[in-house]
Amino acid sequence: MELYSYYRSTSSYRVRIALALKGLEYQAVAVNLLKGEQRDPGYLAMNPQGRVPALRTEQGQLLLQSPAIIEYLEELQPQPALLPSDPLERARVRAVAAIIGCDIHPLHNVSVLNRLREAGQDEVQVNAWIGHWIAQGLAAVEQLIGEQGFCFGASPGLADLYLIPQVYAAERFNIDLAGYPRIRRVAALAAQHPAFSIAHPARQADAPAQ
Amino acid sequence: MELYSYYRSTSSYRVRIALALKGLEYQAVAVNLLKGEQRDPGYLAMNPQGRVPALRTEQGQLLLQSPAIIEYLEELQPQPALLPSDPLERARVRAVAAIIGCDIHPLHNVSVLNRLREAGQDEVQVNAWIGHWIAQGLAAVEQLIGEQGFCFGASPGLADLYLIPQVYAAERFNIDLAGYPRIRRVAALAAQHPAFSIAHPARQADAPAQ
Repeated sequence: MELYSYYRSTSSYRVRIALALKGLEYQAVAVNLLKGEQRDPGYLAMNPQGRVPALRTEQGQLLLQSPAIIEYLEELQPQPALLPSDPLERARVRAVAAIIGCDIHPLHNVSVLNRLREAGQDEVQVNAWIGHWIAQGLAAVEQLIGEQGFCFGASPGLADLYLIPQVYAAERFNIDLAGYPRIRRVAALAAQHPAFSIAHPARQADAPAQ
Repeated sequence: MELYSYYRSTSSYRVRIALALKGLEYQAVAVNLLKGEQRDPGYLAMNPQGRVPALRTEQGQLLLQSPAIIEYLEELQPQPALLPSDPLERARVRAVAAIIGCDIHPLHNVSVLNRLREAGQDEVQVNAWIGHWIAQGLAAVEQLIGEQGFCFGASPGLADLYLIPQVYAAERFNIDLAGYPRIRRVAALAAQHPAFSIAHPARQADAPAQ
């Protein structure tokens, strides 16, 4: 498989964690969002949305959108499972993923921030915007996840692979995480876990040299 | 089951279509977003995110976030199926749902538009913002859905129940849909389908009298 991705894209980071947790091999294909490579005609011909991540399957199909890609990986290789088996428990886990994937991350992705700047918002306003949505969303996540272990138990799963990239973004934007002790607990656990480490933006081939 | 919802909320509308397609009975509990009922302490105690929709299951659990609720309904009652059976086909359908659910709708929900206004954007700028994200997202959807029938075939499914509420929102915001003939075809088909009709905002008990 090939993963079209950008090292710092949190939705790419989610998929990298899912691949690593499942032990699936892939080739990374870097798409430099700052250089606008997502709008190259060749890339747009494959991916009309012009975003990352996108996963080229072994059959050659290109799959778009991290939520769809991650559910595909879960179906392709059910073990280790990213979701529990009980439908009600699955819904609880997916709700946390959706809060991050729908109500936090889309509001601070690079195209949205650039649009705010084009609309005349200065960097102070842009940073206030980012901080508002991350703080509001993480406050809900903090109340919905469990009191020990990863988000929902001893093993990492779907909620964790959304949360850890969101924590990375929060730290990049200098958001204070002191008020979210459960989230900080999960982040500390993930920092010790090899699948999360190998998927980290700093470990990607397209990351700038340290 | 009980569905906490608001007639004009497109994410509530998605869940209503899913329930109707599956023939599942429920009681609607209106949460008036314009009056701020989503921030009532009693509602926040149940739903820390303070949003709609939320589904109270027959076992009494409250499920949040429309993507999680819809996947739950699919698992609770697999027929009629909202997703095809092949994992690659499922991923194609879920990608369209995610474009709408992650990259269009979150950018024009009422809390985001109010935040733009608080940041000093006037109504012309707010409308340009809405139009930009809807047009960009629907352009990708137009290229990804099929050339006949509903989004992905003769029967409506997951992509359709995201798309039709998004078309409703686009029309409410006076977005020109002339450039999206496939989407208009799907909307015309859905207008004839009883599950989409019964779920329409105008048909809800909390909608203003015509």
